[in-house]
Amino acid sequence: MNFETKVGFSQTDKIFVHGYDLVEDLIGTITLADMAFLGAKHRKPTESESKMLNAIMVSICEHGFTPSSVSTRLTYLGAPEAAQAAVAAGLLGAGTVYLGAMEQVAEMLENGIRQHGADKNATELARLILDDRTEKGMQLPGFGHPIHRPVDPRTGKLFEIAKELGFYKKNSETLEEISRQFNERKGKPITLNAVGAIGAILADMEFDHRVMRSFAVAARAVGLVAHIVEEIESGRKDSVGQQLFDFIEDNTKYTAEPIGNR
Amino acid sequence: MNFETKVGFSQTDKIFVHGYDLVEDLIGTITLADMAFLGAKHRKPTESESKMLNAIMVSICEHGFTPSSVSTRLTYLGAPEAAQAAVAAGLLGAGTVYLGAMEQVAEMLENGIRQHGADKNATELARLILDDRTEKGMQLPGFGHPIHRPVDPRTGKLFEIAKELGFYKKNSETLEEISRQFNERKGKPITLNAVGAIGAILADMEFDHRVMRSFAVAARAVGLVAHIVEEIESGRKDSVGQQLFDFIEDNTKYTAEPIGNR
Amino acid sequence: MNFETKVGFSQTDKIFVHGYDLVEDLIGTITLADMAFLGAKHRKPTESESKMLNAIMVSICEHGFTPSSVSTRLTYLGAPEAAQAAVAAGLLGAGTVYLGAMEQVAEMLENGIRQHGADKNATELARLILDDRTEKGMQLPGFGHPIHRPVDPRTGKLFEIAKELGFYKKNSETLEEISRQFNERKGKPITLNAVGAIGAILADMEFDHRVMRSFAVAARAVGLVAHIVEEIESGRKDSVGQQLFDFIEDNTKYTAEPIGNR
Amino acid sequence: MNFETKVGFSQTDKIFVHGYDLVEDLIGTITLADMAFLGAKHRKPTESESKMLNAIMVSICEHGFTPSSVSTRLTYLGAPEAAQAAVAAGLLGAGTVYLGAMEQVAEMLENGIRQHGADKNATELARLILDDRTEKGMQLPGFGHPIHRPVDPRTGKLFEIAKELGFYKKNSETLEEISRQFNERKGKPITLNAVGAIGAILADMEFDHRVMRSFAVAARAVGLVAHIVEEIESGRKDSVGQQLFDFIEDNTKYTAEPIGNR
Repeated sequence: MNFETKVGFSQTDKIFVHGYDLVEDLIGTITLADMAFLGAKHRKPTESESKMLNAIMVSICEHGFTPSSVSTRLTYLGAPEAAQAAVAAGLLGAGTVYLGAMEQVAEMLENGIRQHGADKNATELARLILDDRTEKGMQLPGFGHPIHRPVDPRTGKLFEIAKELGFYKKNSETLEEISRQFNERKGKPITLNAVGAIGAILADMEFDHRVMRSFAVAARAVGLVAHIVEEIESGRKDSVGQQLFDFIEDNTKYTAEPIGNR
Repeated sequence: MNFETKVGFSQTDKIFVHGYDLVEDLIGTITLADMAFLGAKHRKPTESESKMLNAIMVSICEHGFTPSSVSTRLTYLGAPEAAQAAVAAGLLGAGTVYLGAMEQVAEMLENGIRQHGADKNATELARLILDDRTEKGMQLPGFGHPIHRPVDPRTGKLFEIAKELGFYKKNSETLEEISRQFNERKGKPITLNAVGAIGAILADMEFDHRVMRSFAVAARAVGLVAHIVEEIESGRKDSVGQQLFDFIEDNTKYTAEPIGNR
Repeated sequence: MNFETKVGFSQTDKIFVHGYDLVEDLIGTITLADMAFLGAKHRKPTESESKMLNAIMVSICEHGFTPSSVSTRLTYLGAPEAAQAAVAAGLLGAGTVYLGAMEQVAEMLENGIRQHGADKNATELARLILDDRTEKGMQLPGFGHPIHRPVDPRTGKLFEIAKELGFYKKNSETLEEISRQFNERKGKPITLNAVGAIGAILADMEFDHRVMRSFAVAARAVGLVAHIVEEIESGRKDSVGQQLFDFIEDNTKYTAEPIGNR
Repeated sequence: MNFETKVGFSQTDKIFVHGYDLVEDLIGTITLADMAFLGAKHRKPTESESKMLNAIMVSICEHGFTPSSVSTRLTYLGAPEAAQAAVAAGLLGAGTVYLGAMEQVAEMLENGIRQHGADKNATELARLILDDRTEKGMQLPGFGHPIHRPVDPRTGKLFEIAKELGFYKKNSETLEEISRQFNERKGKPITLNAVGAIGAILADMEFDHRVMRSFAVAARAVGLVAHIVEEIESGRKDSVGQQLFDFIEDNTKYTAEPIGNR
């Protein structure tokens, strides 16, 4: 029995990662985000790719108190000896609701462009994709945001960087055109959110939509460091986890009818 | 009730992170690893700090098949729709056994230097710390490695970078001196592993030992991307998770005595 | 702000759970599985319901080495101080692949019976449901098993108990009829697996299909105790986690082409 | 290579668990909690053991809103398609702070009785154990509770059941005596909490203290079912997870000083 992998391998005095010598070629040479790139593409990123991916991962790494960071803090409260569990708890909610749009946008664009033809321009593609989803009664991923309305400040910045670095291509262009036409159809501006924009840019960087969520999850893990640090610095009693727990305890109404020993 | 945080906050058109404007000051400007730095220090790193931290996180991000990456692959096998769960499963083993040495080394050095005096030189400090642990029958953290014997190739590289960037200070120096004296006492070379070296360098960068594990966990999360990607690329049937499961199934000896319905 | 819940509430000298006094009405009176029932139905089970649910949960609690139990052992290897993390890691793979069939079977039966009419008999319903899925090119959930072929030994036992206790109703009957007709159409026997059978029985007990996975996950958590205990009893060196890790390390072929410092 | 296990094994038409035939000997015969017993003791429990263990697991399974159940709800909010992740998130905080006392009490009693002699009576043992901990400046595990003061209503009930069933032995007796003397020394009553009582009773049932946490974790997993169900029943918008998230968002004060692009 042999297990095969291209990811990595260790021998006494060498560690190989995707064909590179970790010590000679990677440590001190590339950034942490580049390791995610390497994992997904099996080669080091170019300087532009590295800049773009770092920008993307920085943009979704941290968003203050979210269900995710609050779970991390509540978990840390019970198990401060196991910071890995606190980080893991914060990642576990990274499901379809908040981050799913990234891969859904990429898949929608991928399928739309393949089906309707890459030779069509963005205006046509956007129209066809929108028509198709309307007809099938499917929701449009990547749009809407509870706070950032009607503009997610990260979206413009990310597209701007993508333009500078040469990653603003068919997918990004089509998504922005979808946004324009969608607003027109709705008669009001609806946020094109950062997660959606990232789906398009990563697609323009030729990442498979199926790997995108793991990028987002990795970025989040980095962001959760700050929340653990803040709990450590506050001290248990004044930690947000403890305060929140106390608050909930003081403000819960128990609504079950007493039913005795039925 | 107010929850207070310095980590981050969103308003309609702005996102703030540790006093910075995420869009204006951070996206496109800093690397992903810098977000961990920012989380722990509440300020952006200098260029040297950024390089050092990226080097450290790159060095522990990936190590081929480990219990951690195998758990990720086995979890992905059962729940491919939830990549976040696969990453989380891979982080959960990041406990005292493999990564604990980082914070233990930092704490040992921190306490040793404080107790014996920062004015003592590394040779003296190393001797006192070693004597102290021997006397108390305590193990020496940061030493030993199942594969990299007698030298962990990452250790030298990391200290070299630390020297270049100005982070090779009292803690690193003392740890290398502990290594020298420990080998002398043992009469044979024992690996000073990368995790130990990182504990010392992070201490020289003035990170609290209690936050170090979350850095390691975040780095691991990035490394796990590659393992998920490889499972996706192999396809379910040929994935390492599936092969491993099949292999175990074919090679398990069930050793319980049949006991019938007692 | 008030958070409302019927689940439970504590005051100085009382704990209430779903309208019951935990100490007076539940501790020493009901079984652990009944707490899951209570959570889902907001009332204590009858004796028959309790027996049925215990039988179901016992039947999916333990299955030797699975990706799930192996992840638990690998996680325990790295973090023996955090048994909760080892259990959690073992649960995280409980996604669509192995356990998804439970809720899918229940949903398929629920929808089929509602759509085609509860007045139809099982033979007709089975035919309509099968036709419908064939037409839509949808897979049939609850069928097939890598080991138990062509019969999952738990399936018959569970239906037998369901009959005894009065829970073998329209859903179970229809599923068995689907099995018969499916084999006929295929011209060979295909396993009706335990997870599928459980989906039907739980539907006959009038559980919502959306809560079924959490029952399965809870049962698994109980089963994972045995795996942690065996690792403890073996001792680190002889633990399955360690042996497996060593085996993988010795049998991995690294297949990336060396690419130097590109 | 052979992996050995006594836990379980499957063949085409049989599933073995700890020497029993799952279908013939266990399904329909034992309760879910008995599977945990079987996992830890490699034999089925007696009727008394089964009753005792069910009582114990029921007593710690559910406690309303706790950091644990709130993490489950917040995780479910983001990943409703992955209930296993929501359960796992709720388990991850089961660390030293809330549940650690169980194993600590058992270990304290185990060591105390071994060291001072099982022939000593409970009064003497209690005094010696208390003296010993005072001298070493060690905290007393199993005492104190934020809500149940000065009496945890579960404690008395559990000891009462233990007496009835024959599991109130040296460990339980000594712990109750420690409680009496501790109150005397402190000059005020301090809660002997349920987790502490359980540690003593499980020790009297001859469970190794190292396996106790996994029992508690498994019980919790069952309790979390109710929290997921309540979120499902409320619907996303009115779920506690969503309400809590909204509340936090509306009540967070961001306290970082703006620092511009330093």
